[in-house]
Amino acid sequence: MSFMQDLRLLSSVPPLEGDNISQRYYGDWSCEAQTIPVAVVRPGSTEELSTVLRLCHANDQKVAVQGGLTGLCGGANPQSGELAISLERLAGVEEIDTAAMTMTVRAGTPLQVIQEAALAEGFVFPLDLGARGSCQIGGNVSTNAGGNQVLRYGMTRALVLGLEVVLADGTILCNMNKMLKNNAGYDLKHLFIGTEGTLGIVTRLVLRLFPKSKSRCSALVAVEDFSQVTSLLRRLSADMGPALSAFEVMWDGYVNFMLDNIVDLKTPFSQRHPLYVLTEIEGSHQERDQEHFEEVLAAAFEAGEVVDAAIASSARERESFWKIRDGVAEVGKVIKDSGNFDVSVPISVMPEFLRAVQTRLDDNYPGIQFLAFGHVADSNLHFICSTGVHNDIPGISDLVYEVVGKFNGSVSAEHGIGVQKRKVLHRSRSVAEISLMQNLKQALDPKGILNASRVLP
Amino acid sequence: MSFMQDLRLLSSVPPLEGDNISQRYYGDWSCEAQTIPVAVVRPGSTEELSTVLRLCHANDQKVAVQGGLTGLCGGANPQSGELAISLERLAGVEEIDTAAMTMTVRAGTPLQVIQEAALAEGFVFPLDLGARGSCQIGGNVSTNAGGNQVLRYGMTRALVLGLEVVLADGTILCNMNKMLKNNAGYDLKHLFIGTEGTLGIVTRLVLRLFPKSKSRCSALVAVEDFSQVTSLLRRLSADMGPALSAFEVMWDGYVNFMLDNIVDLKTPFSQRHPLYVLTEIEGSHQERDQEHFEEVLAAAFEAGEVVDAAIASSARERESFWKIRDGVAEVGKVIKDSGNFDVSVPISVMPEFLRAVQTRLDDNYPGIQFLAFGHVADSNLHFICSTGVHNDIPGISDLVYEVVGKFNGSVSAEHGIGVQKRKVLHRSRSVAEISLMQNLKQALDPKGILNASRVLP
Repeated sequence: MSFMQDLRLLSSVPPLEGDNISQRYYGDWSCEAQTIPVAVVRPGSTEELSTVLRLCHANDQKVAVQGGLTGLCGGANPQSGELAISLERLAGVEEIDTAAMTMTVRAGTPLQVIQEAALAEGFVFPLDLGARGSCQIGGNVSTNAGGNQVLRYGMTRALVLGLEVVLADGTILCNMNKMLKNNAGYDLKHLFIGTEGTLGIVTRLVLRLFPKSKSRCSALVAVEDFSQVTSLLRRLSADMGPALSAFEVMWDGYVNFMLDNIVDLKTPFSQRHPLYVLTEIEGSHQERDQEHFEEVLAAAFEAGEVVDAAIASSARERESFWKIRDGVAEVGKVIKDSGNFDVSVPISVMPEFLRAVQTRLDDNYPGIQFLAFGHVADSNLHFICSTGVHNDIPGISDLVYEVVGKFNGSVSAEHGIGVQKRKVLHRSRSVAEISLMQNLKQALDPKGILNASRVLP
Repeated sequence: MSFMQDLRLLSSVPPLEGDNISQRYYGDWSCEAQTIPVAVVRPGSTEELSTVLRLCHANDQKVAVQGGLTGLCGGANPQSGELAISLERLAGVEEIDTAAMTMTVRAGTPLQVIQEAALAEGFVFPLDLGARGSCQIGGNVSTNAGGNQVLRYGMTRALVLGLEVVLADGTILCNMNKMLKNNAGYDLKHLFIGTEGTLGIVTRLVLRLFPKSKSRCSALVAVEDFSQVTSLLRRLSADMGPALSAFEVMWDGYVNFMLDNIVDLKTPFSQRHPLYVLTEIEGSHQERDQEHFEEVLAAAFEAGEVVDAAIASSARERESFWKIRDGVAEVGKVIKDSGNFDVSVPISVMPEFLRAVQTRLDDNYPGIQFLAFGHVADSNLHFICSTGVHNDIPGISDLVYEVVGKFNGSVSAEHGIGVQKRKVLHRSRSVAEISLMQNLKQALDPKGILNASRVLP
């Protein structure tokens, strides 16, 4: 019997083939090359996935693992001759343990379903990102997704207590730990978090839940220069303690672009400033926290660390602050043909890094548009560069990643590597590091069938 | 030339040999078998360690890696024919980056030196344990040490941003990341955290620092049963948010033993109770936090969740609460020949687990003494079992770990595996998990020279 015949026989629902493969399986949200997979198989259980992978392994059949297909680096795009394995049917919340504050879920569950299930029990699952309605938790874990609340809760890795994974040869590895402390041998889950499906396919997860915050206070702050940004961050970290939950920085180029191009946006300030910080705390008592937050910002003002500050007095005012930050989703409508970057550099060298990038870009692409913003407290910068010429993007990218490498930064803060950044991984990783990654890949997937030609160069 | 001649030539200080090997290199704080190593080499730099390991690798020379030698599972005890590699000369703080809130240190630096260096700059490094003056950060990282502040700051793993490690063949792998967000390929540091020196020898680290808390409030609470413990934990988590920093539970057997046997100990209560919780918050404003803490405990009392509560009104009173918990260090003077356990079980099954352990112990060892306490919010339980007969300890251990396995618990919460728990690892790990651990060991240390016959069965 042929591989496809076997596959049809062992699948609980028929694999999608030929014209039955809808366009959604061709690729993710990136602009990377899309290919029609040889078929799409949708296992309904861990055991079924195990059987499928055993068959693929025996037949040297390469597979592309697909979650919600919202990735930005092309990792889930099938490559020539690959079978797509979609986790969409392996979905659902299995259990919420209110004493242990954990949730057990299947990998294909959309993030928003998990957030809502947590809220219904009085908890939060603090991972949050724009694609929440479509992305799946299995993809979030495989890419170690970031988002807006990393400062307080950490990356996805910090939210995973246990997982179940199917290895390349079909072996089911069940590591559904519910405990915060567990040093019984190697902590194997880290092999599968952030490795983008290249070492195994995550099927089930034990996630950490947190109590919903009792208070939230927000402020938009104007500062003169980056040294004030770091002073303010240090002051807020010290005075607000672990309640500090957001510290988003926006440079004038970004804010001015937003104010000039996006309808209905305005700042609470009478004039424009070089830098803006959108900061929030989430604490335990609304009145006391608000009072304390105001005192700390007043002290920052008196110490000459901030030029102006507006504290939100209503949910509506808070939303008006966030609209400036979230307006980035609208940029694509105005600026076409831009390079969009997601990098990290240590906070201590951030201003020099930005100066170096801008100087190099200006020298090579005079008049280039440059909008910068980021989750600065997490070392993460995003920026948008455009000359209006599509063919300039590869050259702009090379230049940016070269500077990232010089500042010991990361070519990927939170979006992963996929196929898009494979060729620039060496800017952030040494020969020895890449060689050890390849050693791991060889040890766990010796036939190279899982998400091949992704992540590693 | 012989191996020893080569070793003498390439060492910056002469290896200790024969009578020059002092007893401190024979083993750690555990009762596991001690052996005199063939020599003790003390590299003063990463490059020197790399040269030593290259030589060992070429000569199939097995090594025992030694830090502060305060481990409790015998992992650092040399085994027959092994060379001891001590990190003691690879010590010192290299840098404190106040903007990035990181500290760069060498692996042989004692924990207390790191804590004090952080404090001198207005930060805390929140890892803390009894051996702080002797243990070294390299050992803390290799065993993923826990301690009293895991609830708020996580295990050691969560405090490490980057590391440098020498692999079995002498390759230097430098991964000195300073950034909170970094998804540039596999996050290799997790291979070396908690793997007890079996996959590489950690030489340098980038650690996370945190601002020192502005407030601290403590209470000793008496409750009737374990359901009240979980209700109280849930209430404090919800109402105090991330400020909750300690939640230590002590059962009556433990507290009564302390009160009856340790001089100067007393509780603030007029009568004895079935269970006690020592809880603390560390926040941002002493007066406001104290007021809030008192309100939340009053609400717990009104809701019938606690029987009695004493809030510390002075540092002295706080210390009197902690003396009951820390009195465990004195138990060994009164109870000889005890089995001391460090296990985890999910909070939701903790009472059933304890009942099962005690029933099995009572059935097999009538009249056995059983003292239980633990960092319950982290799933971690410690208990001390004694019949007064030394030869009973192995049988008691077998029985305890069998019950741990039945409850999907961990045979090691925070002390690691070393040689002591190798034979019971299967109680917490499946055949597939242990096989993958062995696969990793084979991939990274194919000659098996690094801490051989440790951790894995």
